[in-house]
Amino acid sequence: MKVDIEKLKGIVGEENVKDNVADLYIYGSDASVHEALPWVVVRPKTKEQVQEIIRYANAEVIPVVPRGAGSGMSGHAVPIDGGIVMDLKQMNRILEIRPQDMLCKVEPGVVDDDLNRALKPYGMFYPPTPASSKIATIGGEIANNASGVRSVKYGATRDSVLGMKVVLANGDLVNLGSNTRVEASGYQLDRLIVGSEGTLGVIVEATLLLTPLPKIRCLATASFNKLEDAGESISDIISSGALPSMLELMDNVAITAVNKTLNLGLPDVEAIVLFEADGKVKEAVDYEMKIMKEICERHNGFGIEMSYDAKERTRIYSGRKKLFAALSRYKEGLSCTSLADDMAVPNSKMAECARKIHEIAERNNVVMTAYGHCGSGCMHTKILMDPTKKEQWEDAKRAVAEVYDYVYSVGGTTSAEHGIALSKAPSWKKEKADSLAMMRAIKKALDPNNILNPHKLQDAPDDWVTATRLRYPVRA
Amino acid sequence: MKVDIEKLKGIVGEENVKDNVADLYIYGSDASVHEALPWVVVRPKTKEQVQEIIRYANAEVIPVVPRGAGSGMSGHAVPIDGGIVMDLKQMNRILEIRPQDMLCKVEPGVVDDDLNRALKPYGMFYPPTPASSKIATIGGEIANNASGVRSVKYGATRDSVLGMKVVLANGDLVNLGSNTRVEASGYQLDRLIVGSEGTLGVIVEATLLLTPLPKIRCLATASFNKLEDAGESISDIISSGALPSMLELMDNVAITAVNKTLNLGLPDVEAIVLFEADGKVKEAVDYEMKIMKEICERHNGFGIEMSYDAKERTRIYSGRKKLFAALSRYKEGLSCTSLADDMAVPNSKMAECARKIHEIAERNNVVMTAYGHCGSGCMHTKILMDPTKKEQWEDAKRAVAEVYDYVYSVGGTTSAEHGIALSKAPSWKKEKADSLAMMRAIKKALDPNNILNPHKLQDAPDDWVTATRLRYPVRA
Repeated sequence: MKVDIEKLKGIVGEENVKDNVADLYIYGSDASVHEALPWVVVRPKTKEQVQEIIRYANAEVIPVVPRGAGSGMSGHAVPIDGGIVMDLKQMNRILEIRPQDMLCKVEPGVVDDDLNRALKPYGMFYPPTPASSKIATIGGEIANNASGVRSVKYGATRDSVLGMKVVLANGDLVNLGSNTRVEASGYQLDRLIVGSEGTLGVIVEATLLLTPLPKIRCLATASFNKLEDAGESISDIISSGALPSMLELMDNVAITAVNKTLNLGLPDVEAIVLFEADGKVKEAVDYEMKIMKEICERHNGFGIEMSYDAKERTRIYSGRKKLFAALSRYKEGLSCTSLADDMAVPNSKMAECARKIHEIAERNNVVMTAYGHCGSGCMHTKILMDPTKKEQWEDAKRAVAEVYDYVYSVGGTTSAEHGIALSKAPSWKKEKADSLAMMRAIKKALDPNNILNPHKLQDAPDDWVTATRLRYPVRA
Repeated sequence: MKVDIEKLKGIVGEENVKDNVADLYIYGSDASVHEALPWVVVRPKTKEQVQEIIRYANAEVIPVVPRGAGSGMSGHAVPIDGGIVMDLKQMNRILEIRPQDMLCKVEPGVVDDDLNRALKPYGMFYPPTPASSKIATIGGEIANNASGVRSVKYGATRDSVLGMKVVLANGDLVNLGSNTRVEASGYQLDRLIVGSEGTLGVIVEATLLLTPLPKIRCLATASFNKLEDAGESISDIISSGALPSMLELMDNVAITAVNKTLNLGLPDVEAIVLFEADGKVKEAVDYEMKIMKEICERHNGFGIEMSYDAKERTRIYSGRKKLFAALSRYKEGLSCTSLADDMAVPNSKMAECARKIHEIAERNNVVMTAYGHCGSGCMHTKILMDPTKKEQWEDAKRAVAEVYDYVYSVGGTTSAEHGIALSKAPSWKKEKADSLAMMRAIKKALDPNNILNPHKLQDAPDDWVTATRLRYPVRA
C-alpha cells in the first residue's frame, strides 16, 4: 500500500474512503472479463475534492481510475495498476435544465435514465442512451462515447455534448466547449475528452445538447429466409434517404437464443430486421415506414408486423430487448463474454459481417451471434464459451483476432459503443497502428506521470488473456 | 528567403511553385483584415507530395500555412511568419459517394457547392454549408469547424465529419476516425483536427456523413417593433420543442442597410425574425411552422409572410441573403470589417446581445449591426468603420473587447463560425485562459518545431492592430 489513507480521508471525509477487502473486491471489476484490486476507493462529492485527490496522486505518482457505474464492458474501470479508484456516483446533481437554450448541465454521476426522466416534462431528451441507461452515468458515457439503439438518427454521445469541466492530471480545472449548438472557438478539446476513457482527465461537469422528444413512434419487424436479403434491405433503406430512428438486425443464433429461453415464438429464419421511425406528426412517420416496408418486401421480407401502439411495440421489441439476457442462458455451461462485442462496419456490410462471424465461430469452437444497430453500422456479437477451460480462452482469442481482421478489411472499426480499454486493445492497436504515436504524444503531454487510468487504450497489454486477471475460475 | 525553391519544384513540379511578387501578394491575405507575404506558394496534387513538403519544412523549420479558398475571415491563411503557403485547391477530387453507407470521401480542395451538386442525385447532402459555399473548400471548413444558416437543425462541420487522413508535422500520414455513424474506438482524434485551423496537421482526405435531403421547405418572416419581443419569440420557439431548419434575427441596422442599398422595402422595425422548417412531408413542415408562427404572434410579431414556393422563399430571404454585401455600402467611407463578427451566445440571450452591441457601437464611434442564426446561438455582427483612420482601429479594438466581455458574461463563446486565427485571438485567450496551457501542450506534442500555421490561436499576438500588417491604407 503506497497510498496515504489519512490524507484521502482529510479530503473527502472518513465515510468516503474505503479500503476493506470487500469494498476493494467490488471495485476491482466492471462488466468486463477483467479483475484487479485497487488500493483504495474514494468517493468525492465536489470538483474541488477531485482536484485535491488528483493533485495528491500526481505528486505521489499514484494511479487514479475514474469510475461511474462500472457498466463498461471492456475493462475501463478495472485498476490494473492498483492505485485509487475514484467513484464519481455521488456527484449526481442535475445542475440546470435550460430548454430555452436547448441544454442542461449535470455532474458526472447523474444516471442516464434519471436525466431523461427529469427532461421529459420539458418535451426534451438526451439521445445517446445506451442499453445500460438504468445504471450508466453521464460521465462514464462521455468517457466512453456511448450510444444506443437510436444512434442512426440521433448519433452518439459526441454529437450531444456541448462542453464540460475537466480536472487534468496536474489538478487544473479546465472549462472546455461552450453553451451553444455551434462554436468555432479553436481546438475542440471537449471532443478530445469524449472517448478518452478516463486517460486524459476526470469529467466533473458536462453541458449537454437536448433534442425535442418525438411524439409518435412506429415499430415494425420483418423476417428473412436469407441473411443476404436482410442485408440488401438495410443498404437500400439507408441509401433511399429514409431516416429510421432504429434499424436492427438479429441473426439466427440470436433468434434461437431468444426462442430457447423466452418462448416468444419468433420465426426460425436466418434474419429478422426491426425498423422504427419517429416524429411529431403521423404522416411523417407513415412516410418513412412505408418506404422501409416496401424495401423489405422487395427483398423477400415477410411476416411484417407494424404498430404505433406502445404496448404492441414493446411486444414486437421484446425479443431484441431481452436478447443479451437470453444469450447467457443459451446453453448450460456456456458463459456470454463481451469480447469482440461491438465492432462497427459500413451499413452495407452488416449481413456479410454476420455471415463471417458465424464462420469464424464455427472454426474456433465457440458460439457467436450477430445482431446490432445496422443503421449506425454497429454490429453486436458475444462469444459464448466455457470460461473455466483454458483452451476456450485461446479459442476466443483466435476468434476475436479473425473477426477484427475481417472488420478492418471492409473499413470497419473496433468499437461502435463499448470502448477499447483492455479487452479490445490488442486488435484496436492494429487498426490504429499509424496514430498510436499521436495518441501517446497527447497522453504524455497531458499526463506526464501517467496517473490517469494507466495501461488502457494505446498503453494496454497486448494479450488480455495472460496480462490481466480474469473474473472466471480458469482450470489449467 | 530561407527556402529551397528547387527542392519544392522537385516535389510538386515547376508549374506548382510560385514565388513571383504578384502571386505572393495574392496569397498574402484572405478574407480578414490581415496581410503578410509568404516566401513561396506550393500547390501539391497528392498526399504524398504534402508529406514530402512537410518533411522538408520540418527538417528546415520552415512555417507551412495550409490554405483552401482563403475565404477565412479571421486570418487563418495569412502567413504571419512567412514560409510556405500550401494551396490545397488542386486536391479537389470527390473520391467516393456511398449513399448505402451514408458517407462520401473527398480530397480537401473540393468546393462545398460542388460536393452538394454531386450529392443531389443521390437524395443526400452535406449539411454544414457556410455562406461562402460557392468557394469554400471542405478542408478549410473542417480546419475551421464551419457552419451556416441551417446549423440549428443540422449542426456544424464537427457533426458531419466521420474521419480523415491527416499529414502531421513530422510528415506521418495518419488515418483518424472511421466509416461509420458511431464509433467508440478511443481518442476521437479526427474531432481534435476539426477546428484546429491548420496548426496540428494538414487534412488530405475527409470522410463525411451524408444527410437525406428534405423535400419540402417553408420559410416565413415576422416583424417586431421591439427587439425584446423578437428575443422572446426565439427563446420560446427553441423551448417549445419546435425544430426550425433556420431561425434568423435581423436588427434595425441590418434592415436599414438592406433598405438603403437594395430597395427591398423591408418594414422599418426593430427586428425581423425569419423562421423555416423542412421535411419530407408537408404535414410535418406545417406542424413546425404553425407552432413557430403562433409563438411569434403571441409576442406581437406582425406582417407574417410564409411560403412553400421556392421563388417566394428566395424573395423573402433576399434581404438576409444580401445583407453582408449591403453592409459594405451602408455609408460612404465606412468599410465592413470582420472583427468580433460571429460570437455565439445562448439562444435566450440573442435579443439582449443585439441590444448590447448597439450600445457598445455607439459608445465607441463605430457602426455595428446584429443579426444571426439565433437557433444555433450564432450572432453575427460587423464593425463598420473608416479603416484609413488610425483612431478608428482603436475604437474598433475597444468595441471588440467590450462586446466579448458581454458575450463571456452570459456564457457565450468567441466564435460560432469564423474561427479565431489572428483577429479574435486576444479576446479568445481571455475566454479560454484556463485551457491555453492544455492547448499549448498538445500543439507542442504534435508539432515540436512549430511549423504548422505558427502564431495563430493560443500563440497569436495579443494585439491584432499593431502586431499584424493590415490590408488597409491606415493614415497615421
